[in-house]
Amino acid sequence: MDNNENKLTEISSLGEFGLIDRLTKDLPKVNESTVKAVGDDAALLRYPSTDVLVTTDLLLEGVHFDLTYVPLKHLGYKAAVVNFSDIYAMNGTPRQITVSLGISCRFAVEHIEELYSGIRLACEIYGVDLVGGDTTSSRQGLVISITCIGDAAEGTAVYRDGAHDTDLICVSGDLGAAYMGLQLLEREKVASAGMKDFQPDFQGKEYLVERQLKPEARRDIIKALADAGIKPTAMMDVSDGLSSELMHICKASKTGCRVYEDRIPIDYQTAVMAEELGMNLVTAALNGGEDYELLFTVPLTAHDAVSKIPGVKVIGHITKEDLGCALVTRDGNELPLKAQGWNPLQ
Amino acid sequence: MDNNENKLTEISSLGEFGLIDRLTKDLPKVNESTVKAVGDDAALLRYPSTDVLVTTDLLLEGVHFDLTYVPLKHLGYKAAVVNFSDIYAMNGTPRQITVSLGISCRFAVEHIEELYSGIRLACEIYGVDLVGGDTTSSRQGLVISITCIGDAAEGTAVYRDGAHDTDLICVSGDLGAAYMGLQLLEREKVASAGMKDFQPDFQGKEYLVERQLKPEARRDIIKALADAGIKPTAMMDVSDGLSSELMHICKASKTGCRVYEDRIPIDYQTAVMAEELGMNLVTAALNGGEDYELLFTVPLTAHDAVSKIPGVKVIGHITKEDLGCALVTRDGNELPLKAQGWNPLQ
Repeated sequence: MDNNENKLTEISSLGEFGLIDRLTKDLPKVNESTVKAVGDDAALLRYPSTDVLVTTDLLLEGVHFDLTYVPLKHLGYKAAVVNFSDIYAMNGTPRQITVSLGISCRFAVEHIEELYSGIRLACEIYGVDLVGGDTTSSRQGLVISITCIGDAAEGTAVYRDGAHDTDLICVSGDLGAAYMGLQLLEREKVASAGMKDFQPDFQGKEYLVERQLKPEARRDIIKALADAGIKPTAMMDVSDGLSSELMHICKASKTGCRVYEDRIPIDYQTAVMAEELGMNLVTAALNGGEDYELLFTVPLTAHDAVSKIPGVKVIGHITKEDLGCALVTRDGNELPLKAQGWNPLQ
Repeated sequence: MDNNENKLTEISSLGEFGLIDRLTKDLPKVNESTVKAVGDDAALLRYPSTDVLVTTDLLLEGVHFDLTYVPLKHLGYKAAVVNFSDIYAMNGTPRQITVSLGISCRFAVEHIEELYSGIRLACEIYGVDLVGGDTTSSRQGLVISITCIGDAAEGTAVYRDGAHDTDLICVSGDLGAAYMGLQLLEREKVASAGMKDFQPDFQGKEYLVERQLKPEARRDIIKALADAGIKPTAMMDVSDGLSSELMHICKASKTGCRVYEDRIPIDYQTAVMAEELGMNLVTAALNGGEDYELLFTVPLTAHDAVSKIPGVKVIGHITKEDLGCALVTRDGNELPLKAQGWNPLQ
């Protein structure tokens, strides 16, 4: 947060509607389906003959983010992008978001503008309209609740429950880096405690920090799949960790799976950081979470086509349900998968 | 909250997905537009050729509700209903909600089930499907974020900005009772401080308590208007107080207004309570808030038709913008309206 306190504007000096006016001034409107945005009891959208997708995320200070090292603009960007990711994970296109904020009294108008600038940047980059929300004070920390609405041509949405025996399991990008970024940020936070003008050392680990603070949603993969004529049989985004998400797909689809340790995509920086921290690299990649990559299954016949998509890797296959979910290690052993991903209720 | 601690289930014993499974078990599906509800990255809705309405509300413990005297079931009911009210205020029909909860560690599964039972009851009564949400722990108090999606046949939605000079201003029900209910509950809370088995005295004031704890959305008025062939020129629900809402309509519509003090509908119990507390009754009715009544404007020609609708009262008329917004008192004086309603940012 900005420490230049003498330039800051108290939120109470604007009031709720003054603040909303300031935050939503000159909001662009890029989607035809956005008819009426901010400024009424509800937003009005018009989706002619398509399927409408709705997803929502609640982010709480102290649980989901730490303002000691998360810049407000990045936080806003990430809060929006993780919702877009959920819409892409349905094979849809995000179109609108609503943003509700609970603001503690230590925030000035400029802080909220910083947060909003990140949200607006994400909207601009992903072609999404900000159409409404709610703004209130919070007795505790910052509360961010975002709902995203998107669309998909009828019949094109992809659920979690469509995976079949022999389908290939694919994942985009690489895994575990956002989790390692979090470990790094936490370590530097501890190191900086009580020190003024502390300069955290992120050299050679920029990718980890970026994956944690500024994740992107894989719109490019959705487009590449469509261009290749591939409709996944099941899809999710990896927010709680690969292991947990795979088990969701298998449970919903009533299948088992085999994932190969040596196929799991891991970045070099992730490996170096795991080594430094003495953590098991595969465990981090399987359970780290916040990757916001796409995990999906395709029929065996799509093997060649899917293999040609840059940034997509086949990491295993779906099996019959009674075979359970397992990781096949480098030495050929099978370890049952466990959902050890981040538990937001603990 | 339930004090029978020995029967309670710790939330961590179920985990996020166990809790969600338990809360969303046997969820009914009443709307055709609900295709896929809880259990995927996003809900999927299908609205053939209609307008889609989206509204959202963020409720924070200590700001919007006090669990000392608000039963969790009532809280859930109210949290859902206030969102339905926003959709009705657009002349639409609520169809789906998503519910995000931030749960502090002092809650057990049974507490959240109580809260959910109120949400589910509201959904049942108003014909709304619960289609998704997010559940997380909260380091502080209870956080409830609800988004409601509804529909309206194309061209039938009513905005705030359509009021014209000479239009009649109408309001449903009566005003100020929910605010007086809050004063009463706060008074009894203070009186009960430190006393065990304190029995609050609500005799003769049951209506006030009900208006505060269990408001209803005016679906009946929307139906009556449609049956009478009346489409309001502008409409809002009264959540922040009549005065504030009227000024929103006038600002958006670029008009002024005159509201007559002796036409403002006030219940007998509200008047008695204001007398008891030495508060100005009209001020309470104008600025109290949380009434969730409908405030709307209709053309002069609709006077006879609108007057026949039970529970609707004509309280004034729209004027040209340069005349400003004013209350005409019983003795014929004009007082400028002020938006003194509840400010969620103070």
